[in-house]
Amino acid sequence: MQNKIFEGIASHRSIRKYKDQEVSDDIIHQIAETAMNASSSGNMQSYSIIVTKDKKLRKKLYPLHFKQSMVLDAPVLITFCADFNRMRKWVRQNRAPMNFDNYMSFMIASIDATLVAQNFALLAESVGLGICFMGTTLANAHEIGRVLNCPANVVPVVGFSLGYPDEAPEVRKRLPLSGVIHQEKYQDYTPEQVGEIYQERETLGMKRYSEVPELKKMMKKHRATNLAEVYTKVKYTRESHITYSQNVLTYLSEQNFMNHS
Amino acid sequence: MQNKIFEGIASHRSIRKYKDQEVSDDIIHQIAETAMNASSSGNMQSYSIIVTKDKKLRKKLYPLHFKQSMVLDAPVLITFCADFNRMRKWVRQNRAPMNFDNYMSFMIASIDATLVAQNFALLAESVGLGICFMGTTLANAHEIGRVLNCPANVVPVVGFSLGYPDEAPEVRKRLPLSGVIHQEKYQDYTPEQVGEIYQERETLGMKRYSEVPELKKMMKKHRATNLAEVYTKVKYTRESHITYSQNVLTYLSEQNFMNHS
Repeated sequence: MQNKIFEGIASHRSIRKYKDQEVSDDIIHQIAETAMNASSSGNMQSYSIIVTKDKKLRKKLYPLHFKQSMVLDAPVLITFCADFNRMRKWVRQNRAPMNFDNYMSFMIASIDATLVAQNFALLAESVGLGICFMGTTLANAHEIGRVLNCPANVVPVVGFSLGYPDEAPEVRKRLPLSGVIHQEKYQDYTPEQVGEIYQERETLGMKRYSEVPELKKMMKKHRATNLAEVYTKVKYTRESHITYSQNVLTYLSEQNFMNHS
Repeated sequence: MQNKIFEGIASHRSIRKYKDQEVSDDIIHQIAETAMNASSSGNMQSYSIIVTKDKKLRKKLYPLHFKQSMVLDAPVLITFCADFNRMRKWVRQNRAPMNFDNYMSFMIASIDATLVAQNFALLAESVGLGICFMGTTLANAHEIGRVLNCPANVVPVVGFSLGYPDEAPEVRKRLPLSGVIHQEKYQDYTPEQVGEIYQERETLGMKRYSEVPELKKMMKKHRATNLAEVYTKVKYTRESHITYSQNVLTYLSEQNFMNHS
């Protein structure tokens, strides 16, 4: 099958280098307005979209996004927040019973926010802009939320840099479809299947890590000898993930999303 | 701005009535293959896509999706799961240190799954199919996951019915953009702003509830006198959300996503 939607989605790649060129509010607003037609649980639209252009503010956010260069180099940072603050204010003003201060509400809102974010990304790419999602938005939500003045019942979930691309990287290779799709029910993987699914990725990954001097050095330093070790010894350690997990769960309590009694 | 991506996203509406017409595996696979080009944290693709067509299985899932008619009436049900089972098997086979059995990993995976789901939805709509997201996928993940044989480290997060539309509903009205977008930082809402943001929705909502006899009856039964009360007395009660929250959090522990010590 081939149409403009297939072409758009198939050509996505993350952009980490940007031209020194502003993105107009008019373009951002047109994109956001259309993106908001994403499915939304009960049509509640339990999200907010924060558009940050101010350089001082981006400098404050830069270390909180673990010094990813895009925070400074792209002209715009977009942060999609799970948001039940607005809805709860409306409910209170109408003297209706309160809700949405629990974990289920956080998840409803974070799914809503993520659906809108993906629409926003595709729309931006369709008019020549580039984006790069940053997982730090959630990993460090408690600090980012404070800088962005998020009140109770608002939590940053996903975010990306936005601007005009100054690079043209290739589309990343993905796992074979047969490794990701399941017919009828989940079909668990045999060791042989796991080997096959990740084979091409291992080959490509190890090639890259042996060719780029910094990556080669990093592997040596951490005594990583295969791609799986690069993932869990270098990029995603259990220790760092436990810290992020605890921070996020504590922040969810602080932001009034954990009242279950 | 106007292009095919804008047109596609702007024309989305949930489809709840479907033709009695199969969707071929070939179409589903082409959509899934392209959808997988969504951004993915560390390119880990920590999700699985379960395609359920079997009528017996959909009958089992029907009550678990709180008897939403689409589960039986649409020919296909797609369930997107947060999945670190596959990745952990690969990590273990490569004798790398283990990870991804914590809350941060669940969130990374559930964001990945949601981004792919939105791509899938847009691609499906671009070839004449219709979808309807079902929030029950997560609200009742523990029961749906059991029926779909999800092993540890796999949790259903988002899902939708899929098929050829047998209705042509209008696009739903959304909140005004000014109520959702924030410049630079989060700008909290005054009571006046909240009133303005929800005004049109209240008017349209109350009109609908006064015109459709079943809805009118339901409002009377629950003594709901305004739209906010419909939301939190009828559709989304605090009690139901607390139950879902507890179920999801317990299931995350059972599925090995809550190891933080």
